[in-house]
Parts: sequence; C-alpha cells; structure tokens
Amino acid sequence: MPFHSHRLPNGLQIIGETSPSARSVAVGFFVRTGARDETPAEAGVSHFLEHMMFKGTARRTAEQVNLDFDRIGANNNASTSEENTVYYAAVLPEYLPKVVDVLADMLRPSLRQDDFDTEKKVILEEIKLYDDQPDSVMSDHARRIYYKSHPLGNSVLGTLESVGALTRDQMYAYFSRRYAANNIVASAAGNFDWDEFVKLISDACSTWNTDIVGRENRTEWTDAPGGLHVLTREKVQQEYALFVGNGPPADSKMRYAADTVALAVGDYSGSRLYWELVDPGHAESADFGYAENDGSGAIFVSLTCEPDNTAENLARIEKILKDVQRDGITDAELQQAKNKILSRVVRRSERPMGRMMAIASMWTYTGEYRDVDTELANFDAVTQKDIRAYLDAYPIDRTTVVAFGPMTELNGTVGKAV
Amino acid sequence: MPFHSHRLPNGLQIIGETSPSARSVAVGFFVRTGARDETPAEAGVSHFLEHMMFKGTARRTAEQVNLDFDRIGANNNASTSEENTVYYAAVLPEYLPKVVDVLADMLRPSLRQDDFDTEKKVILEEIKLYDDQPDSVMSDHARRIYYKSHPLGNSVLGTLESVGALTRDQMYAYFSRRYAANNIVASAAGNFDWDEFVKLISDACSTWNTDIVGRENRTEWTDAPGGLHVLTREKVQQEYALFVGNGPPADSKMRYAADTVALAVGDYSGSRLYWELVDPGHAESADFGYAENDGSGAIFVSLTCEPDNTAENLARIEKILKDVQRDGITDAELQQAKNKILSRVVRRSERPMGRMMAIASMWTYTGEYRDVDTELANFDAVTQKDIRAYLDAYPIDRTTVVAFGPMTELNGTVGKAV
Repeated sequence: MPFHSHRLPNGLQIIGETSPSARSVAVGFFVRTGARDETPAEAGVSHFLEHMMFKGTARRTAEQVNLDFDRIGANNNASTSEENTVYYAAVLPEYLPKVVDVLADMLRPSLRQDDFDTEKKVILEEIKLYDDQPDSVMSDHARRIYYKSHPLGNSVLGTLESVGALTRDQMYAYFSRRYAANNIVASAAGNFDWDEFVKLISDACSTWNTDIVGRENRTEWTDAPGGLHVLTREKVQQEYALFVGNGPPADSKMRYAADTVALAVGDYSGSRLYWELVDPGHAESADFGYAENDGSGAIFVSLTCEPDNTAENLARIEKILKDVQRDGITDAELQQAKNKILSRVVRRSERPMGRMMAIASMWTYTGEYRDVDTELANFDAVTQKDIRAYLDAYPIDRTTVVAFGPMTELNGTVGKAV
Repeated sequence: MPFHSHRLPNGLQIIGETSPSARSVAVGFFVRTGARDETPAEAGVSHFLEHMMFKGTARRTAEQVNLDFDRIGANNNASTSEENTVYYAAVLPEYLPKVVDVLADMLRPSLRQDDFDTEKKVILEEIKLYDDQPDSVMSDHARRIYYKSHPLGNSVLGTLESVGALTRDQMYAYFSRRYAANNIVASAAGNFDWDEFVKLISDACSTWNTDIVGRENRTEWTDAPGGLHVLTREKVQQEYALFVGNGPPADSKMRYAADTVALAVGDYSGSRLYWELVDPGHAESADFGYAENDGSGAIFVSLTCEPDNTAENLARIEKILKDVQRDGITDAELQQAKNKILSRVVRRSERPMGRMMAIASMWTYTGEYRDVDTELANFDAVTQKDIRAYLDAYPIDRTTVVAFGPMTELNGTVGKAV
C-alpha cells in the first residue's frame, strides 16, 4: 500500500495511502487543535466550533452541507479531543471530488451570529446531559486534579460559564489562529488516485491562511499531586475511580511497551484486572489504558463497582500495580498481549477509515509514516527488557487516584461534595 | 471472492467466501433458533442458553473458554435475536484451527446445574436492567401488541417469571432439539483455505446430532390489531412511539424496494422524517426501518420526543406515510437512498466479519449466495415501478401504533399503566 505526501505552499500537509483493492475511500481533515490549546476564557471553543462547522459556509446553508453528504451516501462525522479536531467521511471512489469539496468548504465556515446563538443552547444542553454521566464527570474531575493548571487537564466541553460567556468574535479569533493551513493535515486512504487527491485539495485549500501555529507546554507532566481524592455525589448508584499516572509521549519508542503492559494488566477481558476484579464479581469493570499525547503521555486505570467494595478494590488494584512494577509481566502475558495487539492492529487496518485515521494520527504526532507491517513488527519486537525499561522510566505504581460516587469517606479521606 | 459450500452428512452446512488479500479471517456459527422458536414456558431460553455456552464444556472450564479466545487475540462475541443465535470471532489467519476448535467446543456445552443456577441470577438482573430502558420496553410491548399470539412477538429476554421458572432440563431439551447439526450454518470469510476450513469443521462437528428441525408459523402476519395503543409510565422523561406494519419476507425480491423506501422516508439523516421532525426540533429522533424475517417481514417507524409534542408528531408521521403511500418517493429521493445503500453495503463488505455475517444471513434465510456486486446491482436496479409494486403489496400507512411514556392520554385513547 504505497504512501504519498505533499505539502502545499501555505503549509497544509496532504498524505495518502492508496489501496487499489479497497472498494471505498476515506478522507479526513485533522486539525491540530483541541481543549489543551484553549485559554481559560475560551474553554470549550474547540468543540463548539466543531459543531459550527456544520452550520454553513459562504457557498452552502447548513441544509446543503447535510444534503451534499447524504446525496453521495457519505458516512461522515467529526470529533474533538484534547489535542485534535477531526472531520471525516467515507464514500465510494467515484465521489472523492464531491466529498473533498464539501469537507473543505465546511472548514471555512460562515460562523453567523444567529447560528452561533442557537448552537450555544445546544452545547449548554450537552454540558448538562454530560453531568448525568458519572464516568464522564469523574474523568473530567480526575484530569483537572491530576494535571492541575496544565492545559492537558482542560475539559473538551468546557463549562456552562465559559461556553455561556463565549462570543462569536472570540470563536472567530480562535478559528483564524488554529485552523490555519499549516496546522492541518488532509489524509486519504483506500481506493483513490493520489495525483487527483492532491489536485482536489490544492484547488480547495490553497487560499487558506498561514499563521504562527504550534503548541505550548509540550513537556512531560511531572508535577502530579498523588494521593487519593474523594468526590461525593450521593445520588450516583455506583462508585467510580480513576488512577492517573505518567506515560511516554506519542513520539516515544516506549509507546509499544506501554500499550503492551496496559493490555496485559487491564484489557477488558483476560487481563490481571479482569481475573482479579471483574471475573470474581468484585467490580463491574476495571481497565488499564495508555493515552499518548503530544510531548506527554498518561496511564489510566478505571474502576466501577458497588460503593461498599471500593476500598477493597482500590487495594487490589494498588497491589497489582505494585506487583507489575516490581516483577514485570510473565512471558505468557507478554505473548497474549502481543497476540491481541497484532489482531487489533490488523482488524483496524482492514477498512480505509481505519487506515486514514491511523496515518493522519501518526503524521500529526510524529511526522512520519509507518505501514501496517512496520507497526506490527514494532509491537512484535517488544521484549521483557523493553517492558522493564518502560516501567523504570514511567513507574505505573505512582498514581493520583480520584474516586467519585456516593461514598462520603474512603481510607480516611473525607469526600468533597461535587 | 470465490464462494464455496459443503454439507456434512449430519446436515451441518458449511459456507465460505475466500479473499486472499484480507489480513484476517472471521468465523461464525449461525444457529437457526431464537425467541420465536420458544414455547411460552421456555420464553427466554435461547438467550439464556447463549450465555451458558460460555460456561464450559467437557474439555474446557469457563475460564479456559475465555483464555483460549484471549490467547489468540480473538475478537469474539455472541448474540440472540427472534430468529438466530450467532457465535463468532475474528482472528489472524494462522489461528483459524484454534478458533474453530474453541467455537465448536463451546457449542456442545456442559450445562452444569450450578452454572445454570448462577447464570439465571445474571439473566434476571439483565431483565430488570432492561426494564429501565424505555425504548426496549416500548419495543417489547409493541411487538407483543402487533403480533398478538404469533411467536414473532416473543421477547428475546423472556420474563422474570418464565426465566425464573426455567429448569436445566428444559434448557437441555431445547438445546438438543434446536442445536442439531442440520439447524446450524458454519460460515467463514476472509483470508483462509477452504479445504482446511471444511476439514476443521468436519473434525469438530461430525458427531453432532441430527434432529427434526424447522419452524412453524412461517406465514406472513396479516392479523395485526391496528389503532393506537397508549402505555403509561409516569417516571419516564420522554415519550416513545412505534408504528409497526407489514413488510416483505427475507426471501422476497421486494426486500430491495422495502429497504430503499425505509431509507428515503426515515434514515437517521437527510430523510423525510429527518427534515420534517428532527431537523426542525419537533422530535429527538424519528426513524423508519425494515426488518426482514423468515417467511414474514415488518416495517417499524420509531419516534422519541417531548411528551407534549407526541400527538402532533404522530400526525406528522401519519401524513408522511400517507403521502408516500399515495405518491411514492421522488426520483431525487430514490437516487439518494440508492447512493446511501450502495455506500453502506460496500463499507460493510470491507471487513471479513461483515462478509461472514452477510453470507451466513443470506444462506440462512434464502439458501443462496450473492456476492457484493450482485447485491449492489440488485439495489441499483430498483425502479419507481418496483417501489409502487412494493407499496401496493405492503401499504406503509396501515400500521399499529404503540406509545410509551408519561402521557396518560393521546388522541382520546386513555393510557394503560405498565
């Protein structure tokens, strides 16, 4: 599957992986901006702006944006995270020109004042709905506690206050700064012609502005508070907890070992956490995840259980993390984790959408391309020595723990009502 | 992508579609049994039995079943519907022998009494949880009201009473009857060797019993009650409604026109229901679906909205159904629906899992194989004349309507508390 890349004079990066045996093509625009790039006064603007992209352009009403995707049978969507805002669609190969036209047009939105006012109400509703989802509330609190003032702790949705006070002009200023051509990657994968794709993107995007882009605070986060933090909301039924710790950044070679340990210790099935907490019925769920960020990284161990079992389960998790930190994982665990990863990487790669996302994410974080076989080989090459080196560099038993739920006290720590 | 089929002497049907460019293989056992094949005393046994399949065999404990999937990185699961119980997994090609071994072994379970007793508690909990999900409650009630005593109205989960009273011996009797070899299709798609697959299935399944299988009541359902039925539960926040009507069975050529009309009238985006109910904010959601069954078929129009808007929204939907019944859909709607269907069929076909499911479902319902291009051509060939013929044969405006939510009265019909 040949890879191609080309940079427009305004800095917009085009990449593509062609696969003639595919029957569709996936296209996406990756904008290197998200919650971590917002000032406190702008909190939530990245996500709000993502919504506004669907509200029309100089050439299209909101209805026409929707209709133009529908007419070509596009499977399209968008998402906003701490670091990226992504707009994407999969279509049959003959609709490549049309899908590039509507996606690129969307990314130069009108941002009309009345649409802004209407959509603000939708976002405020979304923030309220979100507050009914305990795992989301816990995750937001835990990030803020762990990262303190570091912008990786910013909430993607923002708050009722920040979004409520946001003006259309603030959004426009953010848009101009962050949606500059040199902060965007246009990616395609599947059955398409590379030269045609470059011409389409060039025709649609060459007039886009260039700006001073980039990101502050790309250093690793070493100032976590540690300890146990108890947040109490009595009407919640289950207790939710999150262990957060340091991990390698996205461009580190240690990411392969970090993913492997996460799977061995806390995959949703067949892992240490599964066998010691979930299978015996002590917990509803207990998972270990590794999140790679720009210049930084983190591990997350999440727990959901009956409130009365929380203290015991926290102790079980702490013991597992300490055991693995001291002794590593077994050869059988290493092999099983590798088999799972290899299988998942392959299955994700089978769809153009999966490959389009993978190459754009790689390029955004590392500026390089790795084909599926290289990625598989990198995981397959992880040794017990690599695992040890990773654990020494990023000890998994040095975590900050946040609990959220009906418990008013845990291990002597009194809960703070939220 | 060549298709193969082979029938074992005991009646077990093996089918496969090989695709050498794929990087994984998906394998599934389709058992032609589900809620509609249960007697009232057995209600819920198909789904309960699906759970029991993971509890161990003569050769494996429950832990070993789980471990054996995990060791090969399998993406495995199972599901039960009104008509089918399906066990499936996707793996890297080298693990085909292992995944067939564990899947086939699972399908001859021990059904131990103590596992049965433990799992019954899990199922009873699941039924209670389900009762907290308004759309599921509404769907169960609506099926029962529409189908009256016809077994297609049976609930997949069963009731607290039926599952509570079920014995291990009843389950075993059902298992022996319905999991006979001649009621099962073993399907594979992706990167695998057909002869090897046949040998693996033959080695694992040749001793399986043969029985008198089949299904009663495969005739079309023409005795629907019609009218509006109001079910009231005051603590529910939104009002949920379902229109149910007759549709072509799975082996009818009219299925292509039925799918096309469903998408044009009620796809989640860009359809008549979307533009007239969802986009203007009258309803949270309004969708039109076509469900193809064995010897029968149905259409479902579902609505979720603010309780006070229910009567108006029911009237809007009725008008749309009447308009389409009288005038059909426009040429633009026909073309847009086709584009969506073609795109979705292609995207589903890109993964071995998608193809494995598609060929097994086709074979189970029609005893035939259609490759992706044939299926695409069948949809592409739908004309306005076909749409008219479908609407004449299965009028979409003759429906039974069930509403569920806080409304105590709708259009003069007083709600029945549930």
